[in-house]
Amino acid sequence: MKYKIDNLQYCKWTREVFQINREAKLDAVHVTIVYHEDYNELLNKIKEWDTFFKENSDIIFLGKSFKDIEKANKENKTAIFFGFQNCSPIEDDISLVEKVHEHGCRFMQLTYNNQSLLATGCYEKLDSGVTNFGKEVIKEMNRVGIVIDMSHSAEKSTYDAIEISEKPIAITHANPFFWHQAKRNKSDQLLKTLSNNDGMLGLSLYPHHLKDNTNCTLESFCEMTARTADLMGVEKIGIGSDLCLNQPDSVVEWMRNGTWAKNKNYGEGSKNKSGFPKQPKWFEDARGFKNLENGLKKVGFNEKEINGILGNNWFNFYKKI
Amino acid sequence: MKYKIDNLQYCKWTREVFQINREAKLDAVHVTIVYHEDYNELLNKIKEWDTFFKENSDIIFLGKSFKDIEKANKENKTAIFFGFQNCSPIEDDISLVEKVHEHGCRFMQLTYNNQSLLATGCYEKLDSGVTNFGKEVIKEMNRVGIVIDMSHSAEKSTYDAIEISEKPIAITHANPFFWHQAKRNKSDQLLKTLSNNDGMLGLSLYPHHLKDNTNCTLESFCEMTARTADLMGVEKIGIGSDLCLNQPDSVVEWMRNGTWAKNKNYGEGSKNKSGFPKQPKWFEDARGFKNLENGLKKVGFNEKEINGILGNNWFNFYKKI
Repeated sequence: MKYKIDNLQYCKWTREVFQINREAKLDAVHVTIVYHEDYNELLNKIKEWDTFFKENSDIIFLGKSFKDIEKANKENKTAIFFGFQNCSPIEDDISLVEKVHEHGCRFMQLTYNNQSLLATGCYEKLDSGVTNFGKEVIKEMNRVGIVIDMSHSAEKSTYDAIEISEKPIAITHANPFFWHQAKRNKSDQLLKTLSNNDGMLGLSLYPHHLKDNTNCTLESFCEMTARTADLMGVEKIGIGSDLCLNQPDSVVEWMRNGTWAKNKNYGEGSKNKSGFPKQPKWFEDARGFKNLENGLKKVGFNEKEINGILGNNWFNFYKKI
Repeated sequence: MKYKIDNLQYCKWTREVFQINREAKLDAVHVTIVYHEDYNELLNKIKEWDTFFKENSDIIFLGKSFKDIEKANKENKTAIFFGFQNCSPIEDDISLVEKVHEHGCRFMQLTYNNQSLLATGCYEKLDSGVTNFGKEVIKEMNRVGIVIDMSHSAEKSTYDAIEISEKPIAITHANPFFWHQAKRNKSDQLLKTLSNNDGMLGLSLYPHHLKDNTNCTLESFCEMTARTADLMGVEKIGIGSDLCLNQPDSVVEWMRNGTWAKNKNYGEGSKNKSGFPKQPKWFEDARGFKNLENGLKKVGFNEKEINGILGNNWFNFYKKI
């Protein structure tokens, strides 16, 4: 079988966006439904999604396991898998891990950019690793079946999570540091350790993670993919585009600032480039998967490998959750 | 003037306990009103306190500044100052710092035993210090007038807080490590740094912080006080008894476990000694201040020094908040 999966999108959801994902033939998308929201705020977001599912039931539905990816493929729909970019919805309460799973959560970052109750984010100065509460939460996430996502976490915290977790973990949206030296991108050693423990990396198409940002070429991206495959093994790589289609700049402010500071923080941006960056031409939305397919062929991947990178590898990972 | 202040109590509050504090002639008590409660749960606790104040208005009232200590002294009442043992009531929201101050909060620990969003607690393996959010919160606590309390924090976090805070900070309830090697007690170097920055230490009467625990002698406690005065300066020492009168053992479980683990944690206790420990005979409640007065005299403190330790030093500290 041949599945197409984008394992991270955070678009401003409308029927149009779901349709674009269908045009791109995506069988599954892992969508970020909350950043810094607490449990009650999460429940409100889920109500919004209930409406999306009702109004677009011909093209999307809530995915709960890998079987829903198979189902989506058969029915020409996209299975939507819920994920959180911060652990704030479980607040300080271990019992909420099971609850958020019941509500459909399948991926949760232990941290966004800052320190959380579970681990350290990549924007902190020092990284003390996974905390006492974090250890308990990892155990519980393993038990109920939520993937530990360390995309925004600091390095020691990520090593800790790999070691503590009894199931493979994921970095759903980031690139290798060797290619573009952004704070959010990951070191060779970390990527090797991730892959040695059956973890997956979702390559990001977010301009701040790309060499030359918006001007990154398809060729450069695909060459990086080849080098990453050499490092991690080709079956450990997928796509986590981090597409934020149609989001207003107020949303990137919320992502970066939450409610933790009185002054503005610009995260990966800067004062002069504070908004969402522009996507490269060859990946303006998920229809860019077609360009990736061609680009990956050009750098020498065979068909099976390309199918793996564009979806089958994530499908196999979902089977293990 | 001669003020008596106990700068940390967490009793099961009843008129009887307020009366005991009056018998002990306490002009002010800093009371813990929450541990791991969030903002809404805090508001409920404050409602409970509104009732306490109404029903016991002849002997207690809510203290907001040092002037209320003077007032309490004149009127033979006890001014009650609110404090939090964890930062959970401000959740992840900088704007709640001002709100909790409006509700009467004057002391807040940046951490209880575990990692918080602000800093690291003394029961974590590694201490990454004050976090990005922590720095913002300290600034805001300085601005509105809430004292940073590092009683349960890990060491680097405490050094960071001393350095970042523009106002003196406090360790409201702990003892020196040289006397009793408990995780919660503090090193010489830390106590010196605290004192060099005009910070205060409240000596604890909680058995787990005492040499020989429940069997600790008054003599030993007062000798420790003398050594601590040599280390920090006698005007930097007060009492923060950590009295938990009449609390059921379910409360010590809540303090230690909150909602962060499925298995029980025993904190400073152990499986066989899981409940609240028994107070030493000479400090079964605040009336033990009288014994402290005698004991401190015996180890050579003069009257002014004793008055300082038993209340005037805290009074002078409150003046700077």
